[in-house]
Formats: sequence, structure tokens, C-alpha cells
Amino acid sequence: MAHLLSRRDLDFLLYEWLDITSLTDRDRFSAHSRDTFDGVLDLSSEMAGKLFAPHNKAGDQSPPRLGDDGRVELIDDVKTALDAYAAADLIAAAFPESLGGLDLPTTISRASMAWFQAANPGTSSYALLTTANANLLAAHGSPEQIDTWVRPMLRGDFSGTMCLSEPQAGSSLADITTKALPVGDGTYRISGTKMWISGGEHELTDNIVHLVLAKTPGGGPGVKGISLFIVPKLLPDGTRNDVALVGLNHKMGNRGTSNTLLNFGDGTHPVTGGTGAVGYLVGEEHRGLTYMFHMMNEARIGVGFLATAIGYAGYLASVDYAKVRTQGRPVAGRDPAAGPVPIIEHADVKRMLLAQKSYVQGALALGLYCSRLVDIEATSDGDERARTHLLLEVLTPIAKAWPSQWCLEANSLAIQVHGGYGYTTEFDVEQCYRDNRLNPIHEGTNGIQGLDLLGRKVVMADGAGLALLIETITATIEATPAGGAPAEFAAALRIAITDLAATTAALWADGNPAVALTNSSVYLQAAGHIVIAWMWLEQLIAVGDSAGAFYDGKRAAARYFFRFELPSTRPQLALLASLDQTTAQTDPAWFTS
Amino acid sequence: MAHLLSRRDLDFLLYEWLDITSLTDRDRFSAHSRDTFDGVLDLSSEMAGKLFAPHNKAGDQSPPRLGDDGRVELIDDVKTALDAYAAADLIAAAFPESLGGLDLPTTISRASMAWFQAANPGTSSYALLTTANANLLAAHGSPEQIDTWVRPMLRGDFSGTMCLSEPQAGSSLADITTKALPVGDGTYRISGTKMWISGGEHELTDNIVHLVLAKTPGGGPGVKGISLFIVPKLLPDGTRNDVALVGLNHKMGNRGTSNTLLNFGDGTHPVTGGTGAVGYLVGEEHRGLTYMFHMMNEARIGVGFLATAIGYAGYLASVDYAKVRTQGRPVAGRDPAAGPVPIIEHADVKRMLLAQKSYVQGALALGLYCSRLVDIEATSDGDERARTHLLLEVLTPIAKAWPSQWCLEANSLAIQVHGGYGYTTEFDVEQCYRDNRLNPIHEGTNGIQGLDLLGRKVVMADGAGLALLIETITATIEATPAGGAPAEFAAALRIAITDLAATTAALWADGNPAVALTNSSVYLQAAGHIVIAWMWLEQLIAVGDSAGAFYDGKRAAARYFFRFELPSTRPQLALLASLDQTTAQTDPAWFTS
Repeated sequence: MAHLLSRRDLDFLLYEWLDITSLTDRDRFSAHSRDTFDGVLDLSSEMAGKLFAPHNKAGDQSPPRLGDDGRVELIDDVKTALDAYAAADLIAAAFPESLGGLDLPTTISRASMAWFQAANPGTSSYALLTTANANLLAAHGSPEQIDTWVRPMLRGDFSGTMCLSEPQAGSSLADITTKALPVGDGTYRISGTKMWISGGEHELTDNIVHLVLAKTPGGGPGVKGISLFIVPKLLPDGTRNDVALVGLNHKMGNRGTSNTLLNFGDGTHPVTGGTGAVGYLVGEEHRGLTYMFHMMNEARIGVGFLATAIGYAGYLASVDYAKVRTQGRPVAGRDPAAGPVPIIEHADVKRMLLAQKSYVQGALALGLYCSRLVDIEATSDGDERARTHLLLEVLTPIAKAWPSQWCLEANSLAIQVHGGYGYTTEFDVEQCYRDNRLNPIHEGTNGIQGLDLLGRKVVMADGAGLALLIETITATIEATPAGGAPAEFAAALRIAITDLAATTAALWADGNPAVALTNSSVYLQAAGHIVIAWMWLEQLIAVGDSAGAFYDGKRAAARYFFRFELPSTRPQLALLASLDQTTAQTDPAWFTS
Repeated sequence: MAHLLSRRDLDFLLYEWLDITSLTDRDRFSAHSRDTFDGVLDLSSEMAGKLFAPHNKAGDQSPPRLGDDGRVELIDDVKTALDAYAAADLIAAAFPESLGGLDLPTTISRASMAWFQAANPGTSSYALLTTANANLLAAHGSPEQIDTWVRPMLRGDFSGTMCLSEPQAGSSLADITTKALPVGDGTYRISGTKMWISGGEHELTDNIVHLVLAKTPGGGPGVKGISLFIVPKLLPDGTRNDVALVGLNHKMGNRGTSNTLLNFGDGTHPVTGGTGAVGYLVGEEHRGLTYMFHMMNEARIGVGFLATAIGYAGYLASVDYAKVRTQGRPVAGRDPAAGPVPIIEHADVKRMLLAQKSYVQGALALGLYCSRLVDIEATSDGDERARTHLLLEVLTPIAKAWPSQWCLEANSLAIQVHGGYGYTTEFDVEQCYRDNRLNPIHEGTNGIQGLDLLGRKVVMADGAGLALLIETITATIEATPAGGAPAEFAAALRIAITDLAATTAALWADGNPAVALTNSSVYLQAAGHIVIAWMWLEQLIAVGDSAGAFYDGKRAAARYFFRFELPSTRPQLALLASLDQTTAQTDPAWFTS
């Protein structure tokens, strides 16, 4: 069986570094212990390997298709795997016991999910979407809505989707045109078209609970008019709601997940008489985007985990390959009469493996760090809660964008380690690369994350967000033991965060967003590399003087990141500080002549 | 019809910058003029658009498959396109009139080919392989071999392949095990298995001429024993040679080209009695690799063109999309009541377009520059020939690797500009991205190019290679007009080449390859960016004070490259100069624990 993630690494990150067991001191998690955490991780690893990984390629090669009867057909393995996942209570893992959940910390449920994401991004997405949907409704739905929709989702009887985008409105939700009209009985009629709806149609569950953003009358222009609705595929009486599958999107990767164009209220429905699909308002009118962003922040961290998991699987595949594939001889003392060596002996192959290791383990560290913040925020109050929330807000765009850029790059390196074989469908890494290319796009493109980071997060609360990040990183630097490599890296990181603070101040010196935000994507990249360098310094401190190959590997990857990667932020920050306007001042006509 | 390349850009590069018309002063090209060059380019653009581009997606979605009769089946459009290509004498374009060719400069034939590569990488590969094969045989084959094999290839009646790799030997040709035994009648019997053979089997032509590397007795170990053979699919008497298709490789991209595993001499052949396939020696025994490297250098520049052409097609597709797709509002003065703007108005989209433009036009400039060196080398002698050859040797690994890395990155940006749509098969850019991912792998992986550049090219002839490159770049710097942006960029480039020279000296100070070559891939990247910056400075000088959107676009792309890209070489060169051994000193065991 292919390796998916490293349990040794997870144990290090969760227990040796983050001290996740300390979360059990908090009431919410008090039923748990390292034993129960390990039990979930053991189960996840085993189930992912046995039920999800084996059909990952089949799901890619036989993607969902529209049958003659209008149903979406999937390979059978998908339902088998998801039913087992639900039966193990994993959909509900992080939910309270009162809803049938396990009250697990988010950190552990994310680590659990990562096994499934590494094993099979396509199949695991159905479960993750259902969890995200249920999470939102559990927070903002009425008790009746929770009973009607959330409980069946947590049991695995229903599944959930998120319906935000429309064909003409993706990054800009202000421009959605799906409408919702109250009909006087407490329900609404929803009409419009939603695009890119993952899991929008299938026969995996008894029902599909769509969470739909739509505009209700009187909300004004832009995002203020947006409300959130539950629009089920089947109404509570079992009749079909006015939700029609218009088509399936055919994608380069992530092909195992059905991705749909859905029409709400196509005008021919017998019950509604063509006035729209039946929808149930979640919370209050015109607050839909607020609710959705609660989910969206978690979804963004989830995308980071997905990218990381796919990157990790590709990394391990390329390590396995490099150990057994022989080719060439050492640069020192080339002797054609001697046999070829495993390619893992070559410095350039080690470079490609170290780069992958530094990316995927750095990204996993960040994802788990953010998840721990979610757990702390959920179980604290006052100043601790506020500070945790603020730090999480600043880190979220990085936790989404950085893994989706660099764990994709890891997959490209995994292909390169395999040579021509990696380019064929006989091996797994080409699918990793195709699957991972989705992640810089969805849940807010990386360009949107850059605007979010530089335009909102670092300036929020009069700059308290950035100040808190720098304060937190500084604490790590000051906790670094003197002498040796860690001290060298801590010194480099101190320079980098000083640069970052000065650059941010320079960008906003005139308070002009049009100037400050021009190179927000470059800012996101620089800040991302600095944050991942911080994650590596954190890991080095946890490593301490521990001996053994595992710890030496951590030291080598940290060294790689500080020597080969962090220095790239210097010219990026210098460019930003110069307020360069090359891109903004380029006339669109210059591209077309 | 989709745009494939920019004819305006080609005209600028060929005539306003490289003054290609001056090649007609040389005897070999004296029959030509700008008119005949333009005629070829017009024809290529039109034929590529009409006969190659329309089935690019079909070729990807219906790749070659093995029919029940053991034949390889392709969609019909492939043969229609290739027959027209041959009928227009384009296979023979750069060959002498005595062989039925057009005596075109390589520079023009490369520019011609680029249209077909941009239109349809899969179909065009068959033609390019045939040209490369014929080119090698025309240089090293006997007159009889030329008549028997080259002439039919140039007419399009036969096609050609290159059979180097074997399942266990790709980067390391020293380890091939295919054997060739003389049988006393002047022919040889070839036995062995060849892997990754593009165009290895199909019904497009009457015959397929395989050029096969095999070991003859008495050559000693390693590459010295390698000889080169013509091994046709059909023998001159029309009977089938002992060459058997073992299987087709299924690839992530470049799917239109059949890629095969071939068995030479499988033991069941009626004529040879199982002793091997009939092969005809090219040139002398044990000089096979020398002949093949003649071809290989051209093939590497050809891969650079292929990567560039696919990158260019994706760039133009994303420009077209960005002009018509509306989304969001300008950062300055966001008014939700106003309509959304075309995304080409957003600074971050302009960044993604400028980056693509700087990559694909910089790469095209380098490819054409190298092609012009090929033409000069072929038509000069003495010192001019030697210097031209030396510069070409130094530039070749960059001309292969840089486009294959950065024009792939351009395709990733083209997807990102399209958002979710770019990830679907409804649009063209996802195929560009998949197709282009091959290019860092074949014809010598980019890792091999790094070793070639730092381990051989820059140190060859006591460092004369690097000295000549720096001298040539310095001449450009000194020809840059004072003042303004070009002078700013020239100053930056001067610092960069000074750094590059010092870094190279530091790397080789102890003359220890095991230390010097550790980070050869980083060296290749830094040298590549410096060379492309030089290409942009060259273009800026050619632009001069010319007015208009086209020239303003060149200025903006040059500015982008010097501001956003060249500075990344500083930390790379600093890392190299430190002789960092992080990668080399990493124990393989550290990856697996």
C-alpha cells in the first residue's frame, strides 16, 4: 500500500510540538486523552488506506457521468467508502455529543481528515463538504433545522453542498443574481443558477442539503442583500424540490468529485408552479454572507489541508521511488564499471525531496497550528479568545494559499523525481499534480487571499493583526536556544519580520488601497514564506537535541527552508517597499497588439 | 480561431531585433529574402490554424490506442494535417535544395515550427521527430542511406524516431543494454527494449525509420561502446523487420503523440530467426553518442521552442479571456451599483499576464537567438565559427530548461486567470499545462541540464564558455543608451553577471565536482534568469524610442522581468557562493523515518 502521510510526523507535530493533549484540560475536550486521539488517527489511517486509496485512480479515470435517466453515476467504491466513514462517526467527529458527535478537537479531526484527503481527494470531498455544511447549520440554524438537516448529515444519511458561485459571479459574490422571495408561509422561493457546486448531484445519500446564497428584496446593492437558505434536493415530504442538474463540469483533476451547474426554479415544477425552489431561511435575512464566511474561513484552512495532504502523498511516493530506482553514479568517482546507484543518492534528487519535505511538513505544521487556534478560540473567552481569533484571521489566507501553491510545486517535483514514469498514469504523482492544481483556485483564488491579507487582515484593528503575528513570531525567536543552526535561523527570521513590518508600513503610508494593494500577491508570497520559516523554527525548537534519523530529517528540511527558500523574500519585500506600480500602470491594450 | 502566436512579435524579433534578413548575405541562404521568409511564416500560421489547432483537443481526448489487429489507431485529422505539412515541403524546410529542401535558415524554420507546436503539440511532434532524424542522417549517414531513408522522410513518405532510452536507462545512457552484432553482410542484428519512443508505431507513413543506440562488441564499458543504427519498421524489400510494439505509454499530457515501448528482436522473426532486428550502422562503430548529441543539442533547443509555443498559446488565450470576462470592481472607488469590469483591469490579473508575457516572449527571443547562432555556425568558419559554437554550447541547456520551467509556469498563470473555468476541459489552458509538463523531463531532465551547464559548459576550454557569454552580455550592456529604464536595467544586469562570474569561480575554486555541482539546479535557474534578462535588454534596445502599444507592451514586460524576476537571482547566487552542502549531506535514511 502506498504511504499517504507520515504517522511519525503527525505524532511529532501533535504531541511533541503542539502538545495537543493539553487541550483535554478544557471542558469541551475533557472526555479525551492521547489514547482516544491515537485511536481516531489509527482508524483514519487504516480506513483511508483500505477503503479510499484503492479507488483513487479509478475515480479519476471513471469520473461521475450523467446516466440516461438523468442521474449522476459514480463508481460503487465511493459509496462504500463514504458509508464506512459515516458509520465510524467521522463526519461528526468534531461535533458535540449532543448532536451525536465525538467532541474531538478540530486539530484531531483535521489530522484525521488529512488521511482521507491524501488517500482520495475526490471521494473525501463529499464527506468534507457535508461536515462543513453541518458545521455552519449547527452554528446558525434553528433547533428545528438542526434536527431536520444536521442530524441526518452527521449520520451520513444526507449530504451537503455550498452554493455560492454563479456563472457570472465567482470572486465577486456581490454580483450574484439568484433571488429568494418570501411566500408568506415562512418559506421562500429560490430562483437562479449556481456554478461549480461540488457534490451537487449524486445518489450517495438519501438527500442533498444545498446551502444557497440568494438575494432577498430590500437588502440594497452588493453583498448586503444576500441571505442564506437551506434548499434540499428532496422536500421533507419526499417530493423532489425544484432543483435541476444542468450539467457536469469536466475537470483536469479532482475528477472524482461531481462538480455541477444547478438550476434552482426552472419554471416547470408541479408544486411551486415555477416560482422557484423551496428554501428555508438560515438565521436572519441579509446576513447570509456573514454566516457563510464563518464556514469559509474553515473551508480555507480545509483547502490548505487538502493541498498539503496531496503534496504529502506525492512526496512519500517520490521518496519510495527514489529509493528503488537506480540511475547514474555519484559525481565523485564516476566508475562506469560500477553499477548504478539509487537516485536518492544524487544531490539534485535529495534537493527535490528536501524541497518537498520542507513544503509539505511546513504546510502541515501551519494547518495544525491554525486548527489548534480554532480549538482554543472555541474554548476560551475574553482576551485569550480575542487574540486567538485575531491571529487566526491573519493566518487564514496564508493557510489557504501557501499550501495550495507550494504543495502543488511539491507534486511537480515528485513527478520530476520519477522522470518519464512520473508523467504516465501508471504512477500516482501525475494525478496528485492535476488534483492539486484546483487548490489555488477554489474557496477564494490565491489572488483574493492576497487582497484579504494585505487589504484587510494586516490592517484590521489599526494594524493589531500584523502586530500580533510579529509578536507571536518574536516569541518563538526569543525562545530559540543560543548557538548552532537554530540561532542562525532565528536571526534570519528576525530580519525577515522586521522587513515585513517595515514593508507593510511603507505600503500603507499614504493609506491609498490602489497603490498599497497593487502587488498584494507578492506580499502574500513573502508573508507566506516567512510564516512557514517560523513553523520550521518552531519545529526545530521542539526537536531540540533529540537524536535519530527522524529528527535529523527535520533539521535538514529546516535548514533547506532557511537556506534555499526564506532568502527569496528579500527581493520580494524590496519590490513591495518600492511601491512599484509596473502592473497597475500597464494598459490592457498593450497585451493585445 | 484561437490565437497561437503573435505574428507581430515574431516580426519584431526576426526583423527589428535579430535582423534575420542579413542571413541572406550568406551563400547558403542567398536565394531567400524577407518575402520568402514571410511567405513561409504566413503559410505556417494559416496551416497551423486550419489543420492543426482544430483537432488539438480531440487528439488529447482520443489518444492513440492499440486496435484489435495490433495497429496503433489515431484520429484521422492527424494524418490529414501531417500530409499537408509534408506536401508544403515543411519537413525539409531547412534542408539543402539538393535533398528537396528549401534552404531556409534554421531561425525561420524554427519560427515556422513554433506555429504548429502552439497549435497542436501532439500532432506536430511526428513531423519534428522526422525532421530531427533526417537531419542527423543527412549529416552522418552514407549517400546510400540518405537516398534510402532521408529522402522519403523529407517527402513525408517515411517518418522517423529516436530510440535512446530503455526501461532501466534514461538519464544514464551508459547503462543501455540493447546489443548490436555484426552478421558479416554489413548489417547488424539489434536486440533490446527501448522506452519512451515517441511515434514508435502508427500508420501515418509507409515506413518508420528508427535511429537506435546499441552496444557493439569491443567498445568497453559505459558510453564508449555505443553505436548508432538505422532500424526500419519495414525492410527495403517490404517485409516487416523484427521490431515489435510492446505497449503504449499513457500520459498526463502530450497525449496526441503515440509513445511506445518497443522490442527489437523478440526471437520469433522469420527472416532473422530470432537473432535480432536488422540494423544498418550509421557512420563508425562506437561513435553513436557523438552523432546523437549533434541531434540532441538541436532537440534541446526544439524542446525549448515547444515549451515556449505552448506557453505562448496559453498566454494569448488568457489575454483573450481577461478582456471579455467581467468580475469585480477597481480597488479605487468600489461602487457596488456600478457594473463589474473586465478582469484585465485588475492589477493582479495584469501581473499574471505580464509575467506570462515576460516568460514566453523572453523564451521565444532566446530560442530565436540560439537558432540564429546555428545558422551562423553553419555558414561561417575559423574564429567566428568557433566562437558561435561555444556560445551556443553554453546557451543550449538554458534554452532547453528555462522555457520548460517558466512557460509551464506561464500555463499555470493562464489557468489562474481563467479561474475555475481554466480548470475545465471546456477551455484550452488546462491541456497546455498538462502538455507542457513533459518538457522539463524529456531530452535530458532539467537536472541534467544543470549538471551540463555548471559541470561542462561554463568550464569548457578553461572557462572560455562562461567568459564568452559574459563578454557577449557585456556588449549588450554597453550598447544600452544612457538614461531611463534601459540604463537602470543594464546596471542591474551588470551586477548580476559580475555575481555570476564570481559565483562560478567560487564554486570551482577547489576543482571538486562533488562540491561544485551540489546545487547545479539552482545555478541553472540563476543563469537562466540572467540570460532571459539579457534577452529583454536586447529587445529594449531594439524597441528604442518607437511609439505605440506594441512597443509599450515590450517596455512593460521588460520592466516586469527586471523588477519582479531578476532580483530572485541574488539570493540564489549567494547560496551557491556559500558552497552550501545541505542537500548533499542529507542522509537518504532521513527521508524515510
